[in-house]
Amino acid sequence: MNEPVPDNAGLPEDVPLATVRRGELVESVHRGRLAVFDPRGDKIEALGDSEAYVYLRSSAKPLQALPLVLSGTADAIGLTDEELAVACASHNAEEPHLAAVRSILEKAGLSEDDLQSGAHLPMYGPAADKLVCKGEEPRPIHGNCSGKHAGMLAVCVHENYETLTYRDPAHPLQRRILGLIAETCGVPEDGVLVAGDNCGVPAFALPLRSFATGLARIATGEELPDQLAGAALRIRDAMRAHPSMVAGTERFDTELMEQTHLLVKGGAEAVLAVGNFEGWGMALKISDGSQRAVRPVALAALEHMGVRMGEGDSIVRGLHGEEVGEIEALI
Amino acid sequence: MNEPVPDNAGLPEDVPLATVRRGELVESVHRGRLAVFDPRGDKIEALGDSEAYVYLRSSAKPLQALPLVLSGTADAIGLTDEELAVACASHNAEEPHLAAVRSILEKAGLSEDDLQSGAHLPMYGPAADKLVCKGEEPRPIHGNCSGKHAGMLAVCVHENYETLTYRDPAHPLQRRILGLIAETCGVPEDGVLVAGDNCGVPAFALPLRSFATGLARIATGEELPDQLAGAALRIRDAMRAHPSMVAGTERFDTELMEQTHLLVKGGAEAVLAVGNFEGWGMALKISDGSQRAVRPVALAALEHMGVRMGEGDSIVRGLHGEEVGEIEALI
Repeated sequence: MNEPVPDNAGLPEDVPLATVRRGELVESVHRGRLAVFDPRGDKIEALGDSEAYVYLRSSAKPLQALPLVLSGTADAIGLTDEELAVACASHNAEEPHLAAVRSILEKAGLSEDDLQSGAHLPMYGPAADKLVCKGEEPRPIHGNCSGKHAGMLAVCVHENYETLTYRDPAHPLQRRILGLIAETCGVPEDGVLVAGDNCGVPAFALPLRSFATGLARIATGEELPDQLAGAALRIRDAMRAHPSMVAGTERFDTELMEQTHLLVKGGAEAVLAVGNFEGWGMALKISDGSQRAVRPVALAALEHMGVRMGEGDSIVRGLHGEEVGEIEALI
Repeated sequence: MNEPVPDNAGLPEDVPLATVRRGELVESVHRGRLAVFDPRGDKIEALGDSEAYVYLRSSAKPLQALPLVLSGTADAIGLTDEELAVACASHNAEEPHLAAVRSILEKAGLSEDDLQSGAHLPMYGPAADKLVCKGEEPRPIHGNCSGKHAGMLAVCVHENYETLTYRDPAHPLQRRILGLIAETCGVPEDGVLVAGDNCGVPAFALPLRSFATGLARIATGEELPDQLAGAALRIRDAMRAHPSMVAGTERFDTELMEQTHLLVKGGAEAVLAVGNFEGWGMALKISDGSQRAVRPVALAALEHMGVRMGEGDSIVRGLHGEEVGEIEALI
């Protein structure tokens, strides 16, 4: 856990976690790594190399939102739980998401123009279609990370940090986030690797098992200093209270939080973060980055951990509605 | 090459073929299998298990179009080379594709209503947007396989086969296609595994090396009976003469055929078929089915085979246009 950033880009040992069957044969296979750890950093389960690094991507958002609570910003400007949840979201850009992001910005005395989250079409198909058919270009607020960026900007205003440069890894807010991620996950600051995320803020990489440990801690508040524990639990509770703000319609994170007592946050390149308040965190990475494998593998792993949420395997249907295959978890 | 269909669904041995790097670390990895064989079935290169089966998916389309020529249908109804090419296509549903498909159907005395290719939005984004914004549902003609289905229907009319049931694996046309695939690739008919393709016709699986051998044969006409060789070369030449009919705007198959002398046909779940008239066929399967790995791996493999087509590695850019990583071939 105290190892510094590795100086080579070796490929971590992974294992087949799901197959895509067509007819009698496996057509495609998804490998990956899975780590389930408790708040003290003790292993409960591991498949593949859990020492190797993983980019947390958007599954770091609950951690990236910690300064919003810890700095007193959330209280000072009166953020609601919905707004805290959208600050941790990879949202669909449905109306309630956009309204919550705008509200954070307004409460901070800012506007959409201050967002530097980068523009992409809404993740939710009908929301994207609506924009396209109106002939409108997507704006930064439609980006799935706009809540995170709004939350970051609000902290900057409250802390008198520069708002124009908030994306810079050397900016005091980004340094503070890195420190909190390191502290929560139990790694030294120089053990957190930083690269660029697609929305322009730092992306963080950690050993998979450190991330799982951190998830166990934010889901329980255990093994964290009191103030940090309090902020973690407030974020956990806000996300749990408003699962639809964290992702949205037809999204796995939302569905899984609605049907269980878990804290759930997915990320790009097929990362999934799960925290259970009973005392464990689960970090999953599908090696090839395919989102389609996340759901069946996660549900199988959760069932193994005693959390049952219906059928995990996914039928693959052809264009005539007929079954042509199935995505099946191997665990 | 004479082994029957394996009775288990084991996972074939594959090797890492491409990495997705972010910053200093590999974020994701794509494994796969690659086979380069000559028309006699002799190995030139192989990575991973080339005996294991692969579903050809849409990369079988040039083979599935063989009866269109062999039966005399193409000559009898006066198909153009563009129309032959679209019968081998996974097309974008751009206007020239739709016009060619309609023309095949008309020449056969049929109409769009006879297509059973299943409906999905055009593969080409702007064509899909146009349909969505007009409030129209996609029709079977927009499906990327509609040219293949139109060609199949034309053969049925010419041969007095039933047109309503042409998708059935037991239909005489589908039996004939299976026989021609087996013959071209040098496997016994019961060595070709059949499952359902998403568009509702049979999907075929073969040993990877048999497929590579078949590709070498259709690209050269070698090791095939005269009539079959003639049909293969006619299809090859039609596809080579009209690369944009085989896929379309911004598509790798089209780009690769336009810039080289190769025969190229991709398929779902990250299969790529390449034939070189100088005497080899290359079959590639990315194990996890990710299309993004096909281009860099194919270009690296082709360069190894002496076909250079510019830079294969692909920069990954964030939403602000900045480089955040790169997809790099490992071969």
